Amino acid sequence: MKTYDQKLTNMVLELKEEAKALGRLTGEEKNRGLRMVIEALESEEEKILQANQKDLEQARRAGVRESLVDRLALDASRLAGMKEALQEVIALKDPVWSSGRTWTLENGLTLSKMTVPLGVVGIIYESRPNVTVDAFALGFKSGNGVLLRGSSSALNSNRALVQAIHQGLKKAGISPKVLGFIDDDRRELVLEMLHMKGKIDLIIPRGGKGLIDFVVENAKVPTVETGVGNCHLYVDAEGDLPMAMEILKNGKMQRPGVCNALETLLVHEAVAKDFIKRLPKELKGVTLRGCEATEKLISVEKATEEDWKEEYLDMILAVRVVKDLDEAISHIDQYGTGHSEAIVTKNYNHAQVFQRKVDAAAVYVNASTRFTDGGAFGFGGEMGISTQKVHARGPMGLEELVTTKYIALGEGQIR
Amino acid sequence: MKTYDQKLTNMVLELKEEAKALGRLTGEEKNRGLRMVIEALESEEEKILQANQKDLEQARRAGVRESLVDRLALDASRLAGMKEALQEVIALKDPVWSSGRTWTLENGLTLSKMTVPLGVVGIIYESRPNVTVDAFALGFKSGNGVLLRGSSSALNSNRALVQAIHQGLKKAGISPKVLGFIDDDRRELVLEMLHMKGKIDLIIPRGGKGLIDFVVENAKVPTVETGVGNCHLYVDAEGDLPMAMEILKNGKMQRPGVCNALETLLVHEAVAKDFIKRLPKELKGVTLRGCEATEKLISVEKATEEDWKEEYLDMILAVRVVKDLDEAISHIDQYGTGHSEAIVTKNYNHAQVFQRKVDAAAVYVNASTRFTDGGAFGFGGEMGISTQKVHARGPMGLEELVTTKYIALGEGQIR
Repeated sequence: MKTYDQKLTNMVLELKEEAKALGRLTGEEKNRGLRMVIEALESEEEKILQANQKDLEQARRAGVRESLVDRLALDASRLAGMKEALQEVIALKDPVWSSGRTWTLENGLTLSKMTVPLGVVGIIYESRPNVTVDAFALGFKSGNGVLLRGSSSALNSNRALVQAIHQGLKKAGISPKVLGFIDDDRRELVLEMLHMKGKIDLIIPRGGKGLIDFVVENAKVPTVETGVGNCHLYVDAEGDLPMAMEILKNGKMQRPGVCNALETLLVHEAVAKDFIKRLPKELKGVTLRGCEATEKLISVEKATEEDWKEEYLDMILAVRVVKDLDEAISHIDQYGTGHSEAIVTKNYNHAQVFQRKVDAAAVYVNASTRFTDGGAFGFGGEMGISTQKVHARGPMGLEELVTTKYIALGEGQIR
Repeated sequence: MKTYDQKLTNMVLELKEEAKALGRLTGEEKNRGLRMVIEALESEEEKILQANQKDLEQARRAGVRESLVDRLALDASRLAGMKEALQEVIALKDPVWSSGRTWTLENGLTLSKMTVPLGVVGIIYESRPNVTVDAFALGFKSGNGVLLRGSSSALNSNRALVQAIHQGLKKAGISPKVLGFIDDDRRELVLEMLHMKGKIDLIIPRGGKGLIDFVVENAKVPTVETGVGNCHLYVDAEGDLPMAMEILKNGKMQRPGVCNALETLLVHEAVAKDFIKRLPKELKGVTLRGCEATEKLISVEKATEEDWKEEYLDMILAVRVVKDLDEAISHIDQYGTGHSEAIVTKNYNHAQVFQRKVDAAAVYVNASTRFTDGGAFGFGGEMGISTQKVHARGPMGLEELVTTKYIALGEGQIR
């Protein structure tokens, strides 16, 4: 038998209890809570920035790359972004206790499939401190207790943010225990979370492949896999090439470190020469790795099997010439991670075939894969981007944080 | 490294390939396939009954109880039931490629959340041979490849049913490989199924607690927990007592061996005397186990902690007197399995509180828990009844066998 950390167990049991009360708050009550949290983030701004300063100093002392230190950094403008996200969540409709479907059986029994909170949702994240606020806001608005486990590198910042949220909730007369925070960076506590079946209803890992694999491998609690995005752009023979180039540049260069960034370019052989010859000039600063056909057109490193598989998250692009749409779709089938895939084409049938056959959370026709994002989709942020098919697929917003319950109203019906 | 059974791996890989084509069939094409399957079940009726005879003989030789042998038995009327279920599935709307939501972003990009098949769905079942046909029909209509692993006691019957289905599909010009059948009763093949991450998209166990626990414990593939139902009826102080008695008798006695049958009766103390005194006469043949207060009213076996926990699936009822609605809900919270729960009351507020607070897949006001069933709900059967919250809850029909994909149609939008 495993011995669980008693403090964590107690926190989760309290969270579970408090989540029941939270699940029955009205939309108005929850929005009032969120407004008080915005106020608290304002009044605590200085403390939060001081705490963040500590994390930044520690990261620099540990020799962390400056680009990663920057991901961790908070300032007035980033805090304003968090408050805006909270405002967006306030503006969203309460997702709890609504029905997409009410019907009556022949015997007069009326059934409704009602939305209800999941209960307790755990988030294990390596990401930036804004996830602390986003995850709380979406979880809270959907009536769920939220248990956060952030990375040790952001421990001071996350602690200060959680303290501000707790303060706001108290002011709104809501128990701060609806947001649990694991203020302890021992690795084994993650494993304990993953084993809390019956106490935690869903765990969402947000971070690198290592974290996600660890969670999926060890979890007894249901989990949703998120994030790994080996995304492709296919430029069709009938594609608008200038449009394709803009979409390629946006997908590869605007923010290469995110999961919806492009990793591989597939080009139909009929337009390969025109399109690929322009790449070195258009994609300045991007390292290109190409198939044999690409090598004949421009000077590139040779792409290996590993290149088709890899999510670079960096200024590197793999390039492959394909003989037709089917070969493009087969390549995506074989190497894609089911995140975001795009085609540029003017051909109606090719657009139809691509959207039906490509198996991914989001499929784009003549648009950038960079839009796969809860904020961009209008969800007021996201709990993560699911790359699995069960429970949720794509950016997880309020709709993905509720479950359903059938309510049957009768007058004595028996079978 | 585990070595997988090569034959099973090949079957699943072919299934996965064929499922892609199935996922793109029109509703009309799938319905034609289902009609051909009905015809094949008719023309093969004799073979199926002969195969079933073998299973029955083996079961009797093995000394299986006659009530269980009966569960296994097929006859003309049970085959007719299977064909009716297929007709019901034909009548249901195609669940694939429809959207509950299409919207346009400020930049003109139009998003649709489209339903798509999951891919390959595995069902591990100990149940009666009709599950073979039900699971195929729902999986097929929702565009999924289905992999069946039945119990060894029904191997001959299941094999004959699958042969008939394959024959019907062939006649409709559809690859019979969309229905895989593990014609091998080695236990280790179940474990291999459970490890086929990336090949099987969802596994649903249907059977006893032992099977379900084994699946949940060992699966790397996403699973949905089904079935265990420790269901309660709460008779409120303001309940209509004759109605409550009919609902109790229906829930406990009409079919005690099923998961939506009642296991525990909770009675408000104000009506306990009237109601409980009538139990011995009304529930003839049912063994009653009661709390202390019940013991004072009628002669019963004493209920222990174990009785509150147990899903009897038998003619046994646990009885407990509670002091109010809150105590009833607390009891259900503590011992319920989240399946089906009922209240009998004339009080509007009590009905409201019960439906909101009780955390179960189906909550009944003044009706029998026996309705929690895909057939009764109008789903044309069910893949199982989910008692978990993630992905699906309650009877799983076509809606629970699809996932979604975001389709974005643009004119060159970038971020």
